[in-house]
Amino acid sequence: MLVMMKANATREEIDAVCRRIESMGYKPHPIPGSTRTAIGITGNREPVEPVALESLPGVGECVPVSKPYKLVGRELKEDTTVIDLGDGVAIGGRQLAVIAGPCAVESREQARLTAARVAAAGARLFRGGAYKPRTSPYSFQGLAREGLEILAEVREEFGLKIVTEAIDAESVEEVERYADVIQIGARNMQNFSLLKRAGRARRPVLLKRGNAATLDELLMAAEYILSEGNYRVILCERGIRTFADHTRNTLDLSVVPAVQQLSHLPIIVDPSHGTGRREKVIAMSRAAVAAGADGLIVEVHHHPEQALSDGNQSLDPAEFEQLLREIGQIAPVLGRSMA
Amino acid sequence: MLVMMKANATREEIDAVCRRIESMGYKPHPIPGSTRTAIGITGNREPVEPVALESLPGVGECVPVSKPYKLVGRELKEDTTVIDLGDGVAIGGRQLAVIAGPCAVESREQARLTAARVAAAGARLFRGGAYKPRTSPYSFQGLAREGLEILAEVREEFGLKIVTEAIDAESVEEVERYADVIQIGARNMQNFSLLKRAGRARRPVLLKRGNAATLDELLMAAEYILSEGNYRVILCERGIRTFADHTRNTLDLSVVPAVQQLSHLPIIVDPSHGTGRREKVIAMSRAAVAAGADGLIVEVHHHPEQALSDGNQSLDPAEFEQLLREIGQIAPVLGRSMA
Amino acid sequence: MLVMMKANATREEIDAVCRRIESMGYKPHPIPGSTRTAIGITGNREPVEPVALESLPGVGECVPVSKPYKLVGRELKEDTTVIDLGDGVAIGGRQLAVIAGPCAVESREQARLTAARVAAAGARLFRGGAYKPRTSPYSFQGLAREGLEILAEVREEFGLKIVTEAIDAESVEEVERYADVIQIGARNMQNFSLLKRAGRARRPVLLKRGNAATLDELLMAAEYILSEGNYRVILCERGIRTFADHTRNTLDLSVVPAVQQLSHLPIIVDPSHGTGRREKVIAMSRAAVAAGADGLIVEVHHHPEQALSDGNQSLDPAEFEQLLREIGQIAPVLGRSMA
Amino acid sequence: MLVMMKANATREEIDAVCRRIESMGYKPHPIPGSTRTAIGITGNREPVEPVALESLPGVGECVPVSKPYKLVGRELKEDTTVIDLGDGVAIGGRQLAVIAGPCAVESREQARLTAARVAAAGARLFRGGAYKPRTSPYSFQGLAREGLEILAEVREEFGLKIVTEAIDAESVEEVERYADVIQIGARNMQNFSLLKRAGRARRPVLLKRGNAATLDELLMAAEYILSEGNYRVILCERGIRTFADHTRNTLDLSVVPAVQQLSHLPIIVDPSHGTGRREKVIAMSRAAVAAGADGLIVEVHHHPEQALSDGNQSLDPAEFEQLLREIGQIAPVLGRSMA
Repeated sequence: MLVMMKANATREEIDAVCRRIESMGYKPHPIPGSTRTAIGITGNREPVEPVALESLPGVGECVPVSKPYKLVGRELKEDTTVIDLGDGVAIGGRQLAVIAGPCAVESREQARLTAARVAAAGARLFRGGAYKPRTSPYSFQGLAREGLEILAEVREEFGLKIVTEAIDAESVEEVERYADVIQIGARNMQNFSLLKRAGRARRPVLLKRGNAATLDELLMAAEYILSEGNYRVILCERGIRTFADHTRNTLDLSVVPAVQQLSHLPIIVDPSHGTGRREKVIAMSRAAVAAGADGLIVEVHHHPEQALSDGNQSLDPAEFEQLLREIGQIAPVLGRSMA
Repeated sequence: MLVMMKANATREEIDAVCRRIESMGYKPHPIPGSTRTAIGITGNREPVEPVALESLPGVGECVPVSKPYKLVGRELKEDTTVIDLGDGVAIGGRQLAVIAGPCAVESREQARLTAARVAAAGARLFRGGAYKPRTSPYSFQGLAREGLEILAEVREEFGLKIVTEAIDAESVEEVERYADVIQIGARNMQNFSLLKRAGRARRPVLLKRGNAATLDELLMAAEYILSEGNYRVILCERGIRTFADHTRNTLDLSVVPAVQQLSHLPIIVDPSHGTGRREKVIAMSRAAVAAGADGLIVEVHHHPEQALSDGNQSLDPAEFEQLLREIGQIAPVLGRSMA
Repeated sequence: MLVMMKANATREEIDAVCRRIESMGYKPHPIPGSTRTAIGITGNREPVEPVALESLPGVGECVPVSKPYKLVGRELKEDTTVIDLGDGVAIGGRQLAVIAGPCAVESREQARLTAARVAAAGARLFRGGAYKPRTSPYSFQGLAREGLEILAEVREEFGLKIVTEAIDAESVEEVERYADVIQIGARNMQNFSLLKRAGRARRPVLLKRGNAATLDELLMAAEYILSEGNYRVILCERGIRTFADHTRNTLDLSVVPAVQQLSHLPIIVDPSHGTGRREKVIAMSRAAVAAGADGLIVEVHHHPEQALSDGNQSLDPAEFEQLLREIGQIAPVLGRSMA
Repeated sequence: MLVMMKANATREEIDAVCRRIESMGYKPHPIPGSTRTAIGITGNREPVEPVALESLPGVGECVPVSKPYKLVGRELKEDTTVIDLGDGVAIGGRQLAVIAGPCAVESREQARLTAARVAAAGARLFRGGAYKPRTSPYSFQGLAREGLEILAEVREEFGLKIVTEAIDAESVEEVERYADVIQIGARNMQNFSLLKRAGRARRPVLLKRGNAATLDELLMAAEYILSEGNYRVILCERGIRTFADHTRNTLDLSVVPAVQQLSHLPIIVDPSHGTGRREKVIAMSRAAVAAGADGLIVEVHHHPEQALSDGNQSLDPAEFEQLLREIGQIAPVLGRSMA
């Protein structure tokens, strides 16, 4: 159930409602909106009786929720969540967020070379994997903490915000120390232990859609994170598995307007994994922005032919500049701009 | 095999090569390009020996073809095929082609009311089914010839080009008499008898991708049409069947750049069947144009709530005007314009 | 709506109900069951008013139908339909029906060699394509009427019932003259013109599930045939298209019990197209019979390595004998036997 | 690379080869076969030079490996791995292994009531979840350690071997203390941290195929476990995600012969999750055994209507007895028997 506070409800009134909810044995989740605050209730097995809450000062109405998710729903919070990373960088706001960088951090030199180019092109967020989930146990598994330290240096040197993946409880610990955004990969979208841990992390979480996940499953995975108290979640479409073989995955852009209808969380698109083919990344980046995405996460390598992983889907720096130029021309149609 | 003529080859030299190919027992398909003519060879079971052709006057080189398709391939013809429908209306050229109208022609009044609105909004092509392939034998199956006559009247009154579906040999006969473009629906993409008949039709063919067709299968279906002599084929992405349930189909926009890489045929997108959800049609139309599509085919009904079929994916006229306005703003980024 | 006659209703009473339905402007479909006759009503747009029928002599009750199909439903007819082909050969009865033979009829010699072997092994039904739907216009398209004549000779010589595919109205004409069962292939499952023509044919129809068809769509395709008056339809599972790549298609055996729950039509399984891999055909044949299928359609070639099509999924005669032996051992568990 | 030892190689010769491999910086994996021992080599980035090994005493030949997996491949080990759980219970041997029990352990009483029935019916292995991965954070998540303690009591009382799921490093710790087999669920098939931890566990691992996993991905996931030293892995097919909607998942039985061709690991089938429909479980169990599966894992609840999870796919005890009876009749066709 959602408790919708009145527009002029005071801080004290909101706190009082939360305390009452706790006294009933449930967990309150106050979410401030642009006009008024909504309070989600979780922890209940049966429907919550509204009587005890409706009469409290400041309460507007109590709304029963039929969808399986509560905290991620737009019913709870009308405005799209804007995730502010500081220094004028945000995801979900008017400016498109473009996260760029190599699949994996391979070395200090590789990370710095690529970072220099993407920063020069205008990107404000850098990606690069230190912990790499790989299909084969014999493939390069990432540099782990050494990779995180390289990423931290990149942040210092180029002023880029860092997005990097965590794959288990231990790596969340490390990643939240070094990075600005914790990425949870598609294969871990329903790793519920990891989601719960990320829900207690002190960084925003970028949650990628599993390659066979329905929209409801994606939203419920996000709900795991929010239900632990971390409301700063960014969703990401990165392609689903179908019979089609002209791309590595089938990029499902229709999920962008679908998410925006159902949820207040921002959604970005990964055209690199979404196609797996370098020569289609720019076209699909334009399409993603035109569909209304809040941003992109793109693989860029200063020398794709030499990449240790995913080289065939990485742009080179010149292609990345072209991408930024073209989406920058489409952004205004959606009322948006580049950083 | 492809015979690439020299840039300055004469009409006579091209004819002589074609006659030689025929004398070898094969079928020549001369396709003029912007700089030079290519001649495709079909009818051969084994690879064609190039020796007999390479020495003829005007022949540049003989290129073996590894792909299963020949006539639809960009190897054969470098420039995108532009299908000129007269009166300044073309598909595949610089101008985006937007085909709009109801799912089915239901009555003279319904067709005229919708046509008046889409023409006023700026569309030049009108769609509407007279023969409707329906999952149930008990659903409305279309007005057949009466529907075609209504479409012909709409053409006269509003100056719109007509696109309508044929479902078997008999209806091709009728449709080519009344319409400007013969549509072959997704369910018939591998109805090879119908494809062959359409290959002998005197109208261009709009070929929709089957909901479980790979790109190669789509191109081979088009090859059936071209191999019978009708080179004016427009491809259409209309969504594939996947596990995803937030849309009726999953619109696979990545097929747009993929087709443009492999084939010279134009490709348009159907965001109505591609999503099945009215509220996602405009977003996906923007995305399709941004991905590089040559046009759209969109369901518009003057009163969607009353439509006999597909009402829940049809735009009303005001929404269609918004769609045209928004794609008109994106088109220039791709070097294109609206009609 | 279904009109369920009383168990002791007379022929005259049934006829009288049918005439009344016709006088209401609808089409009656009387279907005799083991205990009583049901009469399906089609042609109605709105629900039929039961009042006019319930009071007629011999009428038990009038049952509204919620499913989109009527004539194929088990509600209409409790007993599984047995399709009797004469000479003790039937599909849907206690005996398993095994249809075996080459993908395509390639020559008189090839057909006779294979037929001799499958007949000797114990098969009573022979398959072989005279009209071949092929992905490429340049692939072998079948021997057409010459192939049908060869099949007719095989029937005479070996006493085998003939199953062969029709691909359009013209070929139905031919096939019903020469064959015992008209096959409609997976690609044509929603070729509604063909389905209607097959509904007026004088032979039973083997209807293959499309590679992306839901169960409801399969049943509705069969409904097209029954609604034209041909009640002798055999369904066939032949694999669906999925991401899985260890087989050509994914054989969906769960459709066997699902069909048996919803429909009275018999269902057989095609493990050859269903796997596309010779070495998996026997295992999946055993599984199909164990799941409850009424029979199999299997590709057998006297020399698979030389087949013009689908050689890599064809059994050789020795493997086919092993298949028959093994399913013959499983059949009794299901209360069935081999012919 | 694989080092195939001679049939008469001694223990000392095998050890010497292993030491040489270690001295080259790689990791040796000696796997005894019925006639001779194979030694897999992992840890190498480039192909291993065979020269240094071929000349050692007892070495037969050095075989380069092209498949991405090594330790799970049948090339390495010709005989199917039999996982002996003691007390005459094994998976992969001549006897079919049937694991039965409720989706989740809900209470001591529920576990005991169901265990009594499945033991009486003849099952030797009991399943029941103590840690439940659930799509919603608000669904019942299992009794955790309390559930494990109940399972341990069931083992004592009824002599059943226990199979239960672990979902992260902590729960592996617990599960390996209480259970006989550690299950890794479909959603965690590519949770590589968990796979590595399971590879260091002292219990066999039941690894379920992800709902969108290819066969190669399943085998590579198993390879993660083996590469850490735990060679006792059982694979499990439990249905894949497709467009088909008559079952919850599409059970892909063709993976059974496919695994048996490529790998020496045993494979069982889960018809409960594989169909999600109680009324199809028995038919698909028969089919799985007929396809050659080494066993089944089936949900049974003493009172399915009251189950806290998955009640609509659980058999009641009488249905489970019927299942055992029917697969017991099919088993001999495959040269197998029930316990």
